[in-house]
Amino acid sequence: MKDERKFEEQISRRGLIKTAIGMGSLAVITSGGLGLLSNAEAAKNKSQKFPWPYKKLSDQEIKQAGETAYNNWFKGFCAYAALSGIVQTLAAKVGGPYKTFPMEAIMFAHGGTAGWGGTCGTLIGAGIGASLVAGHKDAEEIINEVMYYYSDTALPTFVPANPIAYKDLKATSTANSTLCHISVGKWMKAEGIAEGKGPEGVGFLSHQQIDRCARMAANMSMKTLEFLNQWKDGKFEAKNEAPSVANHIPSQNNCTDCHHDNVPTPGPFGTGVGILKGRYGIGL
Amino acid sequence: MKDERKFEEQISRRGLIKTAIGMGSLAVITSGGLGLLSNAEAAKNKSQKFPWPYKKLSDQEIKQAGETAYNNWFKGFCAYAALSGIVQTLAAKVGGPYKTFPMEAIMFAHGGTAGWGGTCGTLIGAGIGASLVAGHKDAEEIINEVMYYYSDTALPTFVPANPIAYKDLKATSTANSTLCHISVGKWMKAEGIAEGKGPEGVGFLSHQQIDRCARMAANMSMKTLEFLNQWKDGKFEAKNEAPSVANHIPSQNNCTDCHHDNVPTPGPFGTGVGILKGRYGIGL
Repeated sequence: MKDERKFEEQISRRGLIKTAIGMGSLAVITSGGLGLLSNAEAAKNKSQKFPWPYKKLSDQEIKQAGETAYNNWFKGFCAYAALSGIVQTLAAKVGGPYKTFPMEAIMFAHGGTAGWGGTCGTLIGAGIGASLVAGHKDAEEIINEVMYYYSDTALPTFVPANPIAYKDLKATSTANSTLCHISVGKWMKAEGIAEGKGPEGVGFLSHQQIDRCARMAANMSMKTLEFLNQWKDGKFEAKNEAPSVANHIPSQNNCTDCHHDNVPTPGPFGTGVGILKGRYGIGL
Repeated sequence: MKDERKFEEQISRRGLIKTAIGMGSLAVITSGGLGLLSNAEAAKNKSQKFPWPYKKLSDQEIKQAGETAYNNWFKGFCAYAALSGIVQTLAAKVGGPYKTFPMEAIMFAHGGTAGWGGTCGTLIGAGIGASLVAGHKDAEEIINEVMYYYSDTALPTFVPANPIAYKDLKATSTANSTLCHISVGKWMKAEGIAEGKGPEGVGFLSHQQIDRCARMAANMSMKTLEFLNQWKDGKFEAKNEAPSVANHIPSQNNCTDCHHDNVPTPGPFGTGVGILKGRYGIGL
């Protein structure tokens, strides 16, 4: 996983922390004699037999997982929905630990975590699902690709067999972000249902926005399962660098969305190497 | 849980979806005859005996949970660390399902999810921990309060017994946000370790920033456990409204941090009722 490797390399180069990769999917970082926990102690934290078994899904099963995610939005919102598309599908296909995983424990992550508009809940749900299957290291590579897909693609493209809140959505939109607030806002603008101005007289929590977010959950579940199928075949390839590596701070690549023309580089928060260069190709 | 109640009220008022609260902590939303799943089907998704047992922790045990979270940052970063402060502590105190919960499945949420700078991973970890104990509805009230604490408090205040990466941090900072990117950036500025300018010649991934983030995980684990203690006594009180209710879109309350003087109200993305008024008291 590029991000973590880079992370560990950076730390290591600075002589702070020696890195030990071990114990299957768990990257354990131990410090240089500063009272850190041993590998044996770290192993105690591991659930037995984690990650869990996976069986490749057919295209039809992945589409059905999308339907599951879509329908479950109306039970527990976006994070729960995206997670359920993976876990509920694998509970039926594989059984075992998937059948008792407490999916309700992720409901709070809806709306960018308790409605705070941060990271889209569908990505939190998808990330947990991917992790249960592939373990941390591989899952983080997978979720990084899912996040690029979320950020760079005109969505939602999923069309449910039985639309629940709104049948004929007109718009797709490209978020250029993984934040709920930005993603929802841009889509509302594209759909023409800004608050108080839509055909239903509502925007946030309109029939349309609800259905859009349920479809987003389906899209993220399905994309994650597609990557997990590739991973199972040893064919998954991490194509994109994590933005934190490019930008030298945990970040997205949409700097100007918030910073406008005042992105702090090469100022105090960046060497200038990556902040604008990154994916937008803006050199210094 | 105010946010969800409001959410459901709004949907209900618009005649879209009838709301049924039932089955313990799980709020099930069923639509008006549009092919939605039944309560019985929804019940199948519930893990048995969820949420899990809780025993109140002493002040000393909560401090020790902070140490656990702090130390575990160096095994699995922020989300895993904050979750482990709750789950590992309860595995020892209560046992049962806490002992086998696959905490590794949340590692990917570090750095605002795979390093994308979104919702701080400590809040994702804390939210899952709270949910396992209190169930979705109560946990969302709790995590909303933890998020206000995160956003409004000069942090970190936790001081580890055995500092691992850096002993004498100088600064605390108030994020006015729950996003990793903003929270980390503001703290780096306060500490005076902007990249390439710190005493170690580094900023992001400096000794200082690493130790700061580990301490943040401790602070969030401890605050969540304090609220869970109150909750166990029936004394937890939700004091703050979720920002999505005030702002009519999933959002934080730091609108001007990104929008500067161009917050879109009373324009197309808000009625103007809440967007600026919210916590900052900026009326129209």
